[in-house]
Amino acid sequence: MDHLRRIRALRKQMQLLKNEAMLVTNLPDVRYLCGFTGSNAALAITLNRASLFTDGRYTAQAKEETKGARVVIAEKSALRDACSWLEDSGAAHAQFDPEQTTVAALDLMREGLSKAKRRSFFQPLEKALVSLLRQVKDADELLLMENAALLGCNLFTAVLPHIQSGIAETEIAADLEFFARSLGAEGMSFDTIVASGKRSALPHGRATETKLPRNGFVTLDFGVILKGYCSDMTRTVYVGKPGKQELFAYDAVLEAQEAAVAAVRPGATCGEVDNAARSVLLKAGLAKYFTHSTGHGVGLEIHEQPRVAAKQDSVLEPGMVITIEPGIYMEGKFGIRIEDMVAVTESGGKILTPAPKAMIQL
Amino acid sequence: MDHLRRIRALRKQMQLLKNEAMLVTNLPDVRYLCGFTGSNAALAITLNRASLFTDGRYTAQAKEETKGARVVIAEKSALRDACSWLEDSGAAHAQFDPEQTTVAALDLMREGLSKAKRRSFFQPLEKALVSLLRQVKDADELLLMENAALLGCNLFTAVLPHIQSGIAETEIAADLEFFARSLGAEGMSFDTIVASGKRSALPHGRATETKLPRNGFVTLDFGVILKGYCSDMTRTVYVGKPGKQELFAYDAVLEAQEAAVAAVRPGATCGEVDNAARSVLLKAGLAKYFTHSTGHGVGLEIHEQPRVAAKQDSVLEPGMVITIEPGIYMEGKFGIRIEDMVAVTESGGKILTPAPKAMIQL
Repeated sequence: MDHLRRIRALRKQMQLLKNEAMLVTNLPDVRYLCGFTGSNAALAITLNRASLFTDGRYTAQAKEETKGARVVIAEKSALRDACSWLEDSGAAHAQFDPEQTTVAALDLMREGLSKAKRRSFFQPLEKALVSLLRQVKDADELLLMENAALLGCNLFTAVLPHIQSGIAETEIAADLEFFARSLGAEGMSFDTIVASGKRSALPHGRATETKLPRNGFVTLDFGVILKGYCSDMTRTVYVGKPGKQELFAYDAVLEAQEAAVAAVRPGATCGEVDNAARSVLLKAGLAKYFTHSTGHGVGLEIHEQPRVAAKQDSVLEPGMVITIEPGIYMEGKFGIRIEDMVAVTESGGKILTPAPKAMIQL
Repeated sequence: MDHLRRIRALRKQMQLLKNEAMLVTNLPDVRYLCGFTGSNAALAITLNRASLFTDGRYTAQAKEETKGARVVIAEKSALRDACSWLEDSGAAHAQFDPEQTTVAALDLMREGLSKAKRRSFFQPLEKALVSLLRQVKDADELLLMENAALLGCNLFTAVLPHIQSGIAETEIAADLEFFARSLGAEGMSFDTIVASGKRSALPHGRATETKLPRNGFVTLDFGVILKGYCSDMTRTVYVGKPGKQELFAYDAVLEAQEAAVAAVRPGATCGEVDNAARSVLLKAGLAKYFTHSTGHGVGLEIHEQPRVAAKQDSVLEPGMVITIEPGIYMEGKFGIRIEDMVAVTESGGKILTPAPKAMIQL
């Protein structure tokens, strides 16, 4: 991982915005910029220096992991020490991310300053600079994300033979998660969703002890964490024999998903990609059942920038990795969602989760 | 779950502090107070009314789960609508939890108000009222926590036969997590720690592909989520034949852990419990290797109030559930940690994780 390049890229953005100093406390941001993975960290960055503040639990780990920043082990509070360091750097102001800083943390940050500086030294960033940098994955990251996504795909293949009427949703989740660990995942990137029968109409139906029905959809939405990077995919399969309405709806969701994947290319806006999916469902008379956005960025965190939603004007760039996951949810009846991870390439989009999407009947 | 009682208890605290209204956005707090488990929620409470704001994804679920508050499905922003509702309630001010509210969220909250109110309507709570209520578990919660803790215990028993030299840490984590799911857990309450050999000296050594050594400690720190409640326990076992220093250190940590458990009783301060563990390790000459606090509250979240740490003057009360987890970490050599969940009873403490603690050699 070229952490030095990332810190340089951040400094370039800081210079453009005439920011002299910055405090980074969001842990995935810290990890992205300097490699440190501990649970207590404050990274203080000026245009020519950087220090990572943590505590005594992480002395060895911080030295081993941190690149591009000096490691400082704080006696009492890593956060306060980072703020004092920023003040001592001579910067007139320091920026922080208001989306990632609690009101209480801002009070603590100010306590690390001399009285004269407390009121105006810290200023909220207008753009979440590190989130924006993290949108575009570098070559090292793309490789890790491909591996995480493929591991996710393999779980789907491995769990398919276990899916049958009468099995509990949690048993399928248990199998998925066991395969994930066995194949080297550090864990799951979010609570595994296994939603069967009428429960498939819940967009966020975490696995319960509900048994799979004789006839009905089963939505599997799951992801792994592999070397820090998250995968995310969804497939909806059918147990038993689907009716006409179910076949029609499945085909519409699949067509919508494929249309959105086809719309991925550098220069397209996220709103255009969302619209590609939404307009297929509109034609099919199912748009009102598509109650969420089409997708989101993914990387060190399961939800990152950009948002792939209606009217979003963020422009896709090569190196971004997003999910494409339209779905429909008919309360009391059924739901269907199909999701891939897609990397934006120089010429279009590359699916990172190449598991079959044609309807599987079990 | 008697959610109405909880909201009444909160209102009583609000009255004592002369607070007329409150905004609750921390999801475990929302769940605790009104039962709603969705991922987007703002609970607005006055002394005689309460409304839960969420979005269209949760229409059915919110109606089904929410007790003691009217459900409102927001068109655009649940948070902003909740703030408008609070202003319309006629309250002069509304409190919020500054530990659980980002600087950006506070800006959004203010945007939900008329201009005249923006500056001073929202005021930070001086005490985190809901966190404080959540410290003392009611009878329903204690039962759920006992079940979660026992499930955790059973995992330890189930995984013991799999622990042997040459097995990867991740394989042990995979087994633990598979058993957890198979026994009904919704998931793990934190990333499973399996730290073997020299890695046992890392207090937070998540499972890696490292193989267990011929001779060395293996620390297992893990927890499940069962019906929303978290378990947390640690055992350190030995693979091979321990040396004198290792036996001495293990006995000291065990003695420290048992001393702290014995110090748990209503009226004791958290500092006293911490000191009970720390002074045993001091006598053994190992105190400098005990680099963290003795424990923490646990419940809907893995880390809750109170903190069981040096000099903490929070007083234990019946119904609190805390962890007792002293450990020592000798960089480059080994580490040992032993942890139980302990419920404070009328007369002392009850261990909820009754797995063996005498040294196990495998």
